[in-house]
Order: sequence, then C-alpha cells, then structure tokens
Amino acid sequence: MPEFDVVVLGGGTAGVHVAAETARAGRSVALAEAGLVGGESPYLACLPSKALLEAAGRGEAWESAAARRDEAASHLDDAAAAARLTDAGVTLFRGTATVTGPGTVEVTAGPAAAAGSAGRCGPKGADGAGNPGPASTLGYTDLVLSTGSEPVAPPIEGLPDIPAWTSAEALSCPDLPRRLVVLGGGSAGCELAQIYAAFGSQVTLVETENVLLPGEAAFTGEILAEALRRTGVDVRLGSAAAKAERMDEGLALTLGDGTRIEADRVLLATGRRPRLGGLGLDRLGVDVKSGAAIPVDSTCRVITPDPAAGEKRAGLWAAGDVTGLGTHTHTARYQGGVVAANILGRRREADYRAIPRAVFTVPGVFAVGASPQAAAEAGISVLAAGADLAGTARAAVAGEDAGRVELYAHPESGQLLGAAAVGPHAPDWMGEVTVAIRAGLPLAILADTVHAFPTWSEALELAIRDLASQLS
Amino acid sequence: MPEFDVVVLGGGTAGVHVAAETARAGRSVALAEAGLVGGESPYLACLPSKALLEAAGRGEAWESAAARRDEAASHLDDAAAAARLTDAGVTLFRGTATVTGPGTVEVTAGPAAAAGSAGRCGPKGADGAGNPGPASTLGYTDLVLSTGSEPVAPPIEGLPDIPAWTSAEALSCPDLPRRLVVLGGGSAGCELAQIYAAFGSQVTLVETENVLLPGEAAFTGEILAEALRRTGVDVRLGSAAAKAERMDEGLALTLGDGTRIEADRVLLATGRRPRLGGLGLDRLGVDVKSGAAIPVDSTCRVITPDPAAGEKRAGLWAAGDVTGLGTHTHTARYQGGVVAANILGRRREADYRAIPRAVFTVPGVFAVGASPQAAAEAGISVLAAGADLAGTARAAVAGEDAGRVELYAHPESGQLLGAAAVGPHAPDWMGEVTVAIRAGLPLAILADTVHAFPTWSEALELAIRDLASQLS
Repeated sequence: MPEFDVVVLGGGTAGVHVAAETARAGRSVALAEAGLVGGESPYLACLPSKALLEAAGRGEAWESAAARRDEAASHLDDAAAAARLTDAGVTLFRGTATVTGPGTVEVTAGPAAAAGSAGRCGPKGADGAGNPGPASTLGYTDLVLSTGSEPVAPPIEGLPDIPAWTSAEALSCPDLPRRLVVLGGGSAGCELAQIYAAFGSQVTLVETENVLLPGEAAFTGEILAEALRRTGVDVRLGSAAAKAERMDEGLALTLGDGTRIEADRVLLATGRRPRLGGLGLDRLGVDVKSGAAIPVDSTCRVITPDPAAGEKRAGLWAAGDVTGLGTHTHTARYQGGVVAANILGRRREADYRAIPRAVFTVPGVFAVGASPQAAAEAGISVLAAGADLAGTARAAVAGEDAGRVELYAHPESGQLLGAAAVGPHAPDWMGEVTVAIRAGLPLAILADTVHAFPTWSEALELAIRDLASQLS
Repeated sequence: MPEFDVVVLGGGTAGVHVAAETARAGRSVALAEAGLVGGESPYLACLPSKALLEAAGRGEAWESAAARRDEAASHLDDAAAAARLTDAGVTLFRGTATVTGPGTVEVTAGPAAAAGSAGRCGPKGADGAGNPGPASTLGYTDLVLSTGSEPVAPPIEGLPDIPAWTSAEALSCPDLPRRLVVLGGGSAGCELAQIYAAFGSQVTLVETENVLLPGEAAFTGEILAEALRRTGVDVRLGSAAAKAERMDEGLALTLGDGTRIEADRVLLATGRRPRLGGLGLDRLGVDVKSGAAIPVDSTCRVITPDPAAGEKRAGLWAAGDVTGLGTHTHTARYQGGVVAANILGRRREADYRAIPRAVFTVPGVFAVGASPQAAAEAGISVLAAGADLAGTARAAVAGEDAGRVELYAHPESGQLLGAAAVGPHAPDWMGEVTVAIRAGLPLAILADTVHAFPTWSEALELAIRDLASQLS
C-alpha cells in the first residue's frame, strides 16, 4: 500500500492549493479527484460567467461570447491544471475516494458518479459513471477533505420533469434560451440573470425573500434589482415557485401566488450544500448530517463533539465549501493556505473577519465583514454610515451615478466591522476596506487616507466623514 | 475695512475646501478668485480629460465626446460652485488679491490678468483683463495662500510664434487637430496623447527623458509606452524639441537630433510651477523665488528661513500646488483639510507617505509612496517584489494581460514604502496599498488579507508572496 504524508480528497481550489503547497515543501502528496482538476470555479462557475459578463460589456453577440467563455473555461480540459499539480510533485488519482479506516483511503478509478460534479448540457443523469475501475488503497498521515459543494434543488412539484439547468450546466451549454426563469436571487442567480438578459433572453428572476442578495445590506439588492429591471429582467421578489409542468413547447412554472410563467428553461440558483456523502467519514468517528458542513477550528482542523473520536481524527483537515464558511473561490484558497501551513508545522489560524463577498454584475456589488443583519444577530447594533456615489466627481465624468457605499462600525469604538457597496467595479475599489477591517485599523487613520481624484473610492471618504460625525 | 477671521487667496480645490470648512465651523471667511471658482481641475483638467477618456472607451466620435467633456466641465460655468461657497457662508470676491501688509489684503475686482488662469482656445493673450474694477481692502486673522500653479513653457526657439496649447486650452477647445505634437511624457502628456490618438489625431509624444512618466518606477512608463504605441501614438523618448517654426499650414518642430516633425498644433505638457507672483508676499517677510514653491511645515503653516519675519507670518498658511508637494487635486483637498483643522484649533499634521499618483490612461497607472528612485535618493535601497497581471485569473477572463504591480519595501523591516502598478483600472484597485502604506501595516497582515476572486488585486497577493519569500 503506497503511503503518503498527505492525501487530499477533492481537487478544487482548496484541494489543489493544499496539495501543491505541501508537495513543494517536500511532503509526499496524493490527490483524488473524480471530476475536473481545478474544481468548478475555473470551468463551470467564476471564469465562464465573468468571461460572459465581459463579452456582454463589449456588446458581443451570444455565439462569440460563448466561444470566449469556453476558451476562458479551457474547453473543460483540465490537462494543464493536472500537469501543474504533477509538476509540483503531487500524485494524481482520478477517481472516487472513500475512507476505509483511520489512515487509509480507497480510490476507485473512474469518472464521478454523482450528478452535478461536472457541468454538462442536456438532461441530467444521462452520463452516469461507467463501470468502476481498479481500486487503490492509500495510506496517509494527514487527510484533507476538500470535496466542495453541490447545488440544492428546491422542493418544487414537478421539477424533475422539466428542462432545468444547474449554473454549471448553464455555463457549459451552447444554448441561449428564448425565455429563461432563474430561481434564486443570490449572487449566482443575479449574475446569470443579467448575463442571459444581456444576450437577449427574456429573463424572469424569482426570489423567495423580499429583496435580492438576501443576507446582505438591503440597499445592495435594491439598487441591483433596479439595474436588472433596466436591462429587461422581470424581477419577482417574495415569490416562491410552487409547481413546474412540462409543456409541448418548454415549461410552465406556477408561483405561490398563482402567477404562471411560461419559459423554455429553468436555471436553479437556489443554493449549494457541502458534498460529503459517501466519503466514509463515520469510519473516522465523524458524523455529519446529510447536507451539513463539516465543523473545523480556526486552523481548519476537523472537530466533532465526540471527544472519544479524537484519536481517529488525528491529522484530519477540511478546506473549501465543505466547511460551510463561504462558497467563494478565494475563501477556499485561503483555507487551503491555512491547512497547508498547519500540516507543514507552521501554525496558522484563519481569520474570517474580512472575507470579501463579490457579485460581478453591472453595477458590481461588494460586501465584507459583518452585514447589518449578521451584526444584529450577534447582538451588536452597528453604527451605519454611507454615501451615494453620485456625490463623487467620478460620477459626473462617468455619466453613471447609481450606487452607494455603506460602512458598519462598532457603536462605541468606531471600529469598522463591515461594509457594502454597489457601483461600477465595486469589487475592485472596495479592497481597501477589506484591508482596513482585517487590520482593525483605527478610524482616524482611515479618515486621513487620501484617495486618488477622480475615483469611485472617494465615496469612502464621504462615508468615513459621515461615520466620524456620528461618533463625535 | 471689513474684517474676516479667514481670507483665502485662490478658489481652486484647496482654497474652496479651506473656506467652506472654516465657514461651516462659524468663522467669517472671504475668498478671492479672479478666475473660475473651483480651479482648473473640474473645468480644465481632471474632469474634462476623464470625460474624454470615458467617451473614447465607449467608442464615441469626437463631436459627441467633446460635448460630453464640456458638460462634465459645466461649460466653464462656475455659478454652481460659487453658490455652494456662498451657501456655506463664504464671502466671494471676484478679483485679483494682493497682500498690502500684515493683516490686510486688497482685492481688485475683475477677471484674471495672468495668462493660463482659465482655459481658452485660440491665440494666447487675446482676452486680457478689462479695466481694473473697484478695489476692496480686507482685514484677516488667518491668510491662506492657495493660488495654484501655472504651466511652464519649455525654452524652445520660436515657440511663441506657433499655435501651441496648454492642457487647459486643449481641454476647452472644440478643435481636433489632424496632427498633434505633445511635449512632455508625464501624466498629463500621456493622458492627452492617448485621448487625441483615440479620436483620430496623428499624435507624436516627445519626452526628453528616456522613459515615459519619469520619476516613477521604469516599468510603468515602459508598459504605458507600448500601450500608447499600439493605439498609434509615435512615442519619442530621449528627445527634446529644439526649434519651432510656423509654416503655411501648421508648424514644424525640430528635435535635438535633427528630426523634423510637421504638425497642426503643439500641446505643452512640460510641467507646472507654483503661481505666487504679484501676491505681495514680501510684505509678510516671505521671499519666494520666481517659480519656486512656498515652504510649509507639516501643519501647512508657511515657514521661511528668516526668524525675524515670524511675527508678520502669524496665521499664514498655504495649501495646494503653491506648496510644491504634488500637483494633484486630492493633495490640494487633503492640505485644505489640514489647514482648516489647524485654523479651527484642532491641530492636524499632513502625512505625505501615501499620496496616490494616478494616470488615467488605458491601461491605468498608479503609484503611491516612495518610487525606487526617490528611495535611492533618500539612501534606502528598497526590496522590490512584483507580479505580472498575466498571473491572475482575471487576465484570462478579460483577455487583457499587459500589466504589472510592484511593491517596494524596507530591506530589513519589510515595511511597505511604496508601490506602483500598470493595468486596467489600476487607480481603482490599488487603493488598498495606499491604506497599507499610510497605516504602516505589518507585512504579515497584508499577506493574510483575502482578495476577491477573480479581481486584478489578486496580483497583489502574488507580489506580497514574492516580497515575503525575499525576506525569509
């Protein structure tokens, strides 16, 4: 049985990062991945969607945009990513892994059996796994769980019978549906609604909450909803889909209030859940309920309430979507770096105070740190200060002035706890707030920081001045 | 004689900010301005040039772009700016001010007599001042010098005889010259060269140094030169114009190496100097050589080597271009805030460690803090670390990958001293480095800061990693 210092289950952003970093440091490392090496982000999520948004911004037609998208997604070919991994010294096993006991993992060669692990266009379940290939048993000292997440289909009567896309399927498909219903007004739903509308689809966006981007500061979703409506998206808030029917041509969706929407395709952007099924974690004394995240401490070491299982869990780590601490590529990479450092004996703790949350729509949305709702749930009534982008010289130049930035601070110390912004390129110019929150910068230093004229970031000066005036 | 707590000479960015802030705090304030209230930035510099760049980016034709430019520049109408000032409680004197002795200023009503104080298109000097109007004598407790700067014409034989523009004249003129020579490859020259080339002018950019953006990290000018050449600008480095001649049609310019360039117009972007002439500062014991800046301490109080003059200089402040500490709108506003705070009795010192320097070309350029040259002159051999933007996922999405970021750190402490970047929207996403330098953030915190995926700012993570590896 081959023995490795580190075995990584799942080759998405987190797993690849842990594997490459620990291998470069001289450890013997194996990584098991049944789908694409690199995970969904580069092939089926972030990169193809941003390529489409860029193409839409340039006014390209769908066919050319889809070609650019497929190029940005490397045509779903992970050979380059796999080569980078093996170049770093990692042994790659293409197959499905299961823990067989403390210190051992079995990898069955072959493609992923689970639906949704790789994008495909067309009816789900058509390309199941082939016959299982030969199995390898690997020994490990450290085991890293980084198997990512999978989309959750909402409980809608008739949904399995209609042509429905996951976002991964949509982003790898040549089709441009004439009429599209997007279920879910979170970041993925908003981005995809805007993309398809930009290329000419008649898009209805259905969100069960009364606001887009639920969980974020309400103004972000409100301004974004206006922008989406201006680009032709029919935004339906406070609406849940109750029933789906296949029709002669396309489908019909009935909302809770009885409204009936006819469409050619439904896109499910109703959330994701950690993908931990079938990993055999019970053999390590780790009992995770179906769909739940695996709990980790600040070093990304797996913890469970059962102290007796401590022994079995020695050297057990998790990073990325499986931890439930944010389904962002950058969070996965960050946690991957934390796990790698700890495996290599350099103790490192993850700091989640300032993890960016970006929505790459036009206008863009950015949030970091505590949202007003999250702060309220934590019992902190934050001081909110804000400024409209219309108050900047840049707005006069750009001829665009819809947008706003808000800062959320501790009511006594004035310490920044969170921030949110909507506006052109907001994820670009809000980075300084991420640094400020992460560093716990005193407000006086932020207030004395000079912003280049004329940039959108000058709105931050106005917001900081507003905050300072509330504190004095 | 009307007595004011504060008299401000010059109503550009700095003067308007000081006047409004002190008036809002209850001081009696007068401001004297012979030209446009608001200064050059909103009417004749930053805003019109950025409006043209935005229009060029949208592919607009010259006529429509010039209309957008004039709109962004409020059609050179300062009524709104003047109204904001008087609404804040400031008494506005439209005229030329001279210090008549400690505590008194005389304002002669009428338009500016000095050339270049307001943009105009056509032969210079055509619109001199009318007859001087009535004079008012004002008393002051605090006097603020904020009369800005004026363009410097290079010593070129025959220059007065040819059709030459200052940048202010260019940016307020309906003409699109068929053939344009831009003298000076600093930020203004590069922006204007790119703008006119984008609208179809045949542009030659002449810079005496061997690199564009002299004084900044060399890679910024090199990448920008490539970009300008790709958009059709003939970039001539290490070339000085020696002689200018008027021709039947247009003009001819002869460079030091004998090259002869024929053109329709020359645009002078060869630097600016503080505008302090005729202010009567000698009556306050302040002796400033022609073209020199007025020295100030960290509170923006005017200092001179003559201690005996101390009494006369009580309550004498300066802000903006006259201080020679950076000809940026944001520096002027920052210093204006410092002066206002000190006049109001809240001691505040200006911190110049992190003043942004932005060039709004495509790609954009941003620098902050010490440049490698400035550090070398200060006897510090900085540690340089960098990353190409091509190493980010964003480059794959955008299909643009020319660009780079460099960080300059103290060789022992690793403390960031400066940074520079070239790339799409660089002035937007480099703001976090400004905060980091201003706050003196430890490298470890920067290295632990998460950047949203996929953004250009991820290049900063690569550069920080490079820096950390050089320090360890």
